[in-house]
Amino acid sequence: MATLIAPSNHSPHEDAETLQKAFKGWGTDDKTVIVILGHRNVYQRQEIRKAYEEIFQEDLVKKLESELKGNFERAVYRWIHEPAERDAVLLNVVLKSAKNYHIIVEISSILSPEELLAVRRAYLNRYKRSLEEDVASHTSGHLRQLLVGLVTSYRYTGEEINVRLAKSEAEILHESIKEKKGNEEEVVRILSTRSKIQLIATFNYYREIHGTSITKNLLDEESDDFQKALYTAIRITTDHVKYYEKVLRHAVKGIGTDEDALTRVIVSRAEIDLGVISEAYYKRNSVLLEDAVASDTSRDYKHFLLTLLGKDD
Amino acid sequence: MATLIAPSNHSPHEDAETLQKAFKGWGTDDKTVIVILGHRNVYQRQEIRKAYEEIFQEDLVKKLESELKGNFERAVYRWIHEPAERDAVLLNVVLKSAKNYHIIVEISSILSPEELLAVRRAYLNRYKRSLEEDVASHTSGHLRQLLVGLVTSYRYTGEEINVRLAKSEAEILHESIKEKKGNEEEVVRILSTRSKIQLIATFNYYREIHGTSITKNLLDEESDDFQKALYTAIRITTDHVKYYEKVLRHAVKGIGTDEDALTRVIVSRAEIDLGVISEAYYKRNSVLLEDAVASDTSRDYKHFLLTLLGKDD
Repeated sequence: MATLIAPSNHSPHEDAETLQKAFKGWGTDDKTVIVILGHRNVYQRQEIRKAYEEIFQEDLVKKLESELKGNFERAVYRWIHEPAERDAVLLNVVLKSAKNYHIIVEISSILSPEELLAVRRAYLNRYKRSLEEDVASHTSGHLRQLLVGLVTSYRYTGEEINVRLAKSEAEILHESIKEKKGNEEEVVRILSTRSKIQLIATFNYYREIHGTSITKNLLDEESDDFQKALYTAIRITTDHVKYYEKVLRHAVKGIGTDEDALTRVIVSRAEIDLGVISEAYYKRNSVLLEDAVASDTSRDYKHFLLTLLGKDD
Repeated sequence: MATLIAPSNHSPHEDAETLQKAFKGWGTDDKTVIVILGHRNVYQRQEIRKAYEEIFQEDLVKKLESELKGNFERAVYRWIHEPAERDAVLLNVVLKSAKNYHIIVEISSILSPEELLAVRRAYLNRYKRSLEEDVASHTSGHLRQLLVGLVTSYRYTGEEINVRLAKSEAEILHESIKEKKGNEEEVVRILSTRSKIQLIATFNYYREIHGTSITKNLLDEESDDFQKALYTAIRITTDHVKYYEKVLRHAVKGIGTDEDALTRVIVSRAEIDLGVISEAYYKRNSVLLEDAVASDTSRDYKHFLLTLLGKDD
């Protein structure tokens, strides 16, 4: 259930011309940018980019970067890119900053095998290095093994489950993760190569046998990046809606806002299932997601996010 | 320089009908099978498969399997499949037999990134498991890390080289491989993620600094599967023609013949560069490859291989 509201028919040329008018003169007419781009789906946005380039011999992305600013600019920048390009850029930012490795886990665990390949292609075209090359050279140890395994995976997506395997691998996970008996390489192998449906079967056996979910009490204050990455991978595979709900909840929690996380989830899920995530958010917090977003953000950035949430009209 | 001789125009329907006549009655007219299939390129063979299915409602691959036998059957079986399918089947055979891991290295190191992806897709469609899933569950330790790294790689294929990196990674390889200081994970990282051209630059620096090639004296009687796999990966990347020449040389050396290796190299390179490999073979052994093949094989199998070598007319 997407939240994006986009018209079925639009004229890319008209949109390009309207945007160009909005850029003219002192300051930019941000409202127009939001009204247009915040109501166009991924194909329509690419058509607008093409039309803009054709008419004005100028890259719309560069133009937007120079005209907008702050969180609003960053959100529009992500939104105007194709999803694979957007993720490639985001992954590069994570690798350069050497933190937030859970975002690598998030992207590689949520995408379909072909979508993930598209991200790898986009990364390679943009940075002249492979994604796994950069992941491997920025990390080490088990964290590296897990992240490289996840970003290079091309999982089976059919419906066949191997029950015997689910049982035996639930035990491997238990011994390694809960009893801390080492064997992290087997944990990496299981999480980075098994199909999602097979992993869910494995996690279900785990709960059946041990009476508690595998992620329960997995993290504490001493958890390292590997354990955090493991936790993220398991949570997304088990229930990505719950995972995203939690990311949003933490992004707006308390004083201050994690705008990067807020933008990331809203931009990447608005055309897919942000409606479902929004419902989960309301159930968990008894606050509407749009109200939480509105009270934690301001001005153009706020209006843009609310537009993607389908709530700013 | 391919050795295959294929006509630019052929009729898939006529070919299919001629093949069907060759299968009729007692015994199969093997000569006709060789004359037709041994002179058709990869696209033409797929067209023949389609035409055969259309006309006779029967799978040509299955028919060939039931009509032919021995080494000849195995060679035709590999030849009739598309390259990605052929490699997927071969990889599965290697994994089930738990030996000849160098074939996994060979396939994953010689193919382009997109060709390797095609093999992964073919593997997944055929076996309902991902290639890396099977590689990882059949192996362990550093061998697993290297093989999984190689089969999941999607390397940069552009021309940019990082000289600083080539120098520093030549040292890492030296310390780990020659001085046996451990650090195998870094060796795996370098060999499985860097572009081929970057690796060649690294190997060149190695030779410049240490006065000897990295593969020199790398293997001895105590070498394990990891070291053998490493050796194969370096050799193929450095000079795949020399690598294939050696595989062929060993296949026909002494008493007995390694038909699997012979078939594998001839079938997989006949449409690509078997001519160059054949020249290298002659230079190294002062014997023509076709003569070596002819003296080590017999009957239909011999004629089929010689046909693929462009020498049986």
